[in-house]
Amino acid sequence: MSAQRILCPRLRQRIMDADAAAALIPAGANVGMSGFTGAGYPKAVPQALAARMRAHHDHGEADRISIWTGASTAPELDGALAEVDGIELRLPYQSDPVCRQKINEGRMEYIDIHLSHVAPYAWAGFFGKLDVAVIEVAGITEQGELIPSSSIGNNKTWIDLADRVILEVNHGQSAGLDGMHDVYYGTALPPHRQPIPLTGPQQRIGERYLHCPPEKIIAVVETNAPDRNSRFSEPDEASRRIAGHLLEFFSREVDAGRLPANLLPLQSGVGNIANAVLAGLADGPFENLTAYTEVLQDGMLSLLKSGKLASASATAFSLSPDANRDLAEHIDFYRDRIVLRPQEISNHPEVIRRLGVIAMNGMIEADLYGNVNSTHVMGTRIMNGIGGSGDFARNGYLSVFMTPSTAKEGAISTIVPMVSHVDHTEHDVQIVVTEQGLADLRGLPPRERARRIIEHCAHPDFRPRLLDYFERASASGRGLHTPHLLSEALSWHERYEQTGRM
Amino acid sequence: MSAQRILCPRLRQRIMDADAAAALIPAGANVGMSGFTGAGYPKAVPQALAARMRAHHDHGEADRISIWTGASTAPELDGALAEVDGIELRLPYQSDPVCRQKINEGRMEYIDIHLSHVAPYAWAGFFGKLDVAVIEVAGITEQGELIPSSSIGNNKTWIDLADRVILEVNHGQSAGLDGMHDVYYGTALPPHRQPIPLTGPQQRIGERYLHCPPEKIIAVVETNAPDRNSRFSEPDEASRRIAGHLLEFFSREVDAGRLPANLLPLQSGVGNIANAVLAGLADGPFENLTAYTEVLQDGMLSLLKSGKLASASATAFSLSPDANRDLAEHIDFYRDRIVLRPQEISNHPEVIRRLGVIAMNGMIEADLYGNVNSTHVMGTRIMNGIGGSGDFARNGYLSVFMTPSTAKEGAISTIVPMVSHVDHTEHDVQIVVTEQGLADLRGLPPRERARRIIEHCAHPDFRPRLLDYFERASASGRGLHTPHLLSEALSWHERYEQTGRM
Repeated sequence: MSAQRILCPRLRQRIMDADAAAALIPAGANVGMSGFTGAGYPKAVPQALAARMRAHHDHGEADRISIWTGASTAPELDGALAEVDGIELRLPYQSDPVCRQKINEGRMEYIDIHLSHVAPYAWAGFFGKLDVAVIEVAGITEQGELIPSSSIGNNKTWIDLADRVILEVNHGQSAGLDGMHDVYYGTALPPHRQPIPLTGPQQRIGERYLHCPPEKIIAVVETNAPDRNSRFSEPDEASRRIAGHLLEFFSREVDAGRLPANLLPLQSGVGNIANAVLAGLADGPFENLTAYTEVLQDGMLSLLKSGKLASASATAFSLSPDANRDLAEHIDFYRDRIVLRPQEISNHPEVIRRLGVIAMNGMIEADLYGNVNSTHVMGTRIMNGIGGSGDFARNGYLSVFMTPSTAKEGAISTIVPMVSHVDHTEHDVQIVVTEQGLADLRGLPPRERARRIIEHCAHPDFRPRLLDYFERASASGRGLHTPHLLSEALSWHERYEQTGRM
Repeated sequence: MSAQRILCPRLRQRIMDADAAAALIPAGANVGMSGFTGAGYPKAVPQALAARMRAHHDHGEADRISIWTGASTAPELDGALAEVDGIELRLPYQSDPVCRQKINEGRMEYIDIHLSHVAPYAWAGFFGKLDVAVIEVAGITEQGELIPSSSIGNNKTWIDLADRVILEVNHGQSAGLDGMHDVYYGTALPPHRQPIPLTGPQQRIGERYLHCPPEKIIAVVETNAPDRNSRFSEPDEASRRIAGHLLEFFSREVDAGRLPANLLPLQSGVGNIANAVLAGLADGPFENLTAYTEVLQDGMLSLLKSGKLASASATAFSLSPDANRDLAEHIDFYRDRIVLRPQEISNHPEVIRRLGVIAMNGMIEADLYGNVNSTHVMGTRIMNGIGGSGDFARNGYLSVFMTPSTAKEGAISTIVPMVSHVDHTEHDVQIVVTEQGLADLRGLPPRERARRIIEHCAHPDFRPRLLDYFERASASGRGLHTPHLLSEALSWHERYEQTGRM
């Protein structure tokens, strides 16, 4: 097996099993791992490390690490290490149920960071020293260059910053990934930064491979395992209606001359609503689309295949097993149309603003004035994290936030008087969409936004009470720029916690 | 007088008085006006317009306009027009007491916008059609080029977008301003945007003059009036202590290798704390500093004069009469060291991130987790606006927010359990400083941030109650990622409104 994927003789001497490699990661280390949206994360070393930690913990010995990644990983990494209480601190994003529980129980520290900030902050030394990097690659060339895997994330940064590097060579990744990546080596710390010369989603500005001095590579572990199974589910009715409102809006914007006929580069979160939007685009009138986004899910491949989408830039895949097979089978077709980049480029404010990306992200809740909560349930419990939504919403040409108008079978209104946590402020949110309709907040002062959101987005079961809150706040004699009743502003969340219904 | 400042024969034919020019602005128009932090705003036409509006209103006739500017203006513009209820909608920033009152009484609409978003959104058509521009200039060349005044703000954009343009030529502005400006004409709408080729604060990438087709210029009005008197007050004790904490922090960062010895380009808000920081830099160990900021106040000129500051980029001056005289007297010295740019460049995320700006801004309040309120008093009443603080805080190398730990003679704690309005989220705030101390939040999870902020920044009078809130929230059985007691989170503000004390 090794003969095919590990061509560099010097690095073949570093091949060992996962237990031996895990033993090279000291307790207490800061460890940078590959992985973004369940793609390209190391499959074996984290589990071997978890086994060691469990044994240590059973003997009363401390053995935990801090983990920095691209974004979310999978049960084999976050799940396994969280399960054994092996994670001291996690950044910059996670979506693992075990992690989530530990964080919300106060047993794991978590820093939720804009994905574009991670690499620059790490370079600046704001997170401390990175000790070890554990990076999945698709192969190693004869010269020792590293062929990136199904995500790039922060891999370049982790490899550059870590003292020691452990590689996992995953034979399960398509060999045809080779050539799909564009690793930009032009970043720097200020005052040495230069313009990033990217002016189109398909443009290549970097290198095909990751580079690492071979003396830093202390272990090479071979694996043969698929990425996390990102199940594709057919869009439900609410998602289809949300997508419908959004696509209608795009058509009106094109008619008004505020969007080109082929729109602008699309950024799309993942999940049911995103799938519905992509499905809608597949059936819609727009041709020659492009994507400049973080993650390519099934729907993006379908759009590429149909020809509706001309090209797509991202930092990771997140595919169902079926789509992954399709990718492998038609890898030459896709390689001509897909560029995978480091997340500091896929999420870079400079590039997002320049390209004029249409940012489409899900949310937990929005309030009357257009503040959006993307991260916290009832103000205290983290769900996943802000991810790249802030990078795209702040800098995109359009910033769209979407959610069904209710959750928990109608017990929760996702439109509330005041959000219980703010991730995107009123200054950064232009369009709010639920299955009820779309509120275009551009150029509206706060009270107009409130009326628009109540009328277009709130569920009819909650609309009268939202209107009542707004009217009483407006009549309260307090400030009328952003009317609120402070004693009631968070009462909907409070009521949900007490009664199970807002 | 005209002979010196209005050299273009064709435009001399357009000279008229302010009443005649104001008559060319139709009721209901969207009007783009010059002006940024009380510099370079039109002095005569707005007052003439206000007089006309008052007369119309006295006869029961509607006569209001919407006003788009760079940022704040002065009593002669915002004050005069607000006084006669002449402003339908105001964007993107104001600081006028009459405006503030009308907005908070619900009698004037106001949209509070990131300053870097204004020009792109206007170009995209998100605010509707711009009918008229009223722009102060320092002079008109023989070829009809416009010499910018003491601010540039959005003037290029307003001139380009408006159907008709009214110029005010202010003989009171120093003729020596000619050559200090750098008007970048390389912006575009996507997908046609290109990298902005700016890599240093002093670099010039644009043109010396503003351009306007002469046929669009419907009036030229001559004035001779100073900019708003920005009184310089000596830093008080609290401000000096805040500045001291910050300068100590900079020294530690230099020692740790996380900042160059000459720091990085400085962005500084205006006001007492900013003055204290600049005064501290004047006495401090750092040499060869640069500034990449919005506004140049007295302290920046002093720093330039002393040689500590090598160069400064901004979009406006905001000077005391003394400093303004000094500027005029040594205009050749300052012209070699100062560049005034359009605010879409001074505040551009691309440039701010590239240069690695140190963002230093005031705030109204911060909460335990590092969320910052820059705009709203007690959650409902607008103070001024977010201005450029978001552009700099999100994209800067460091983002610092500063305030005394109490307000209203100790009745208000500026450190609260939960801010009553969020302008800068926990994801965007790195350093919080009060006279009590400095909390470095970089690389800290939320509960660590809370402990740090309580310990270092809260006033001792409020510290025990903040700690009590945090401990009870942590013991409440709710989520421990961001512990809160939703029923109490805003109770400090509520108590202040009821009792006059938090």
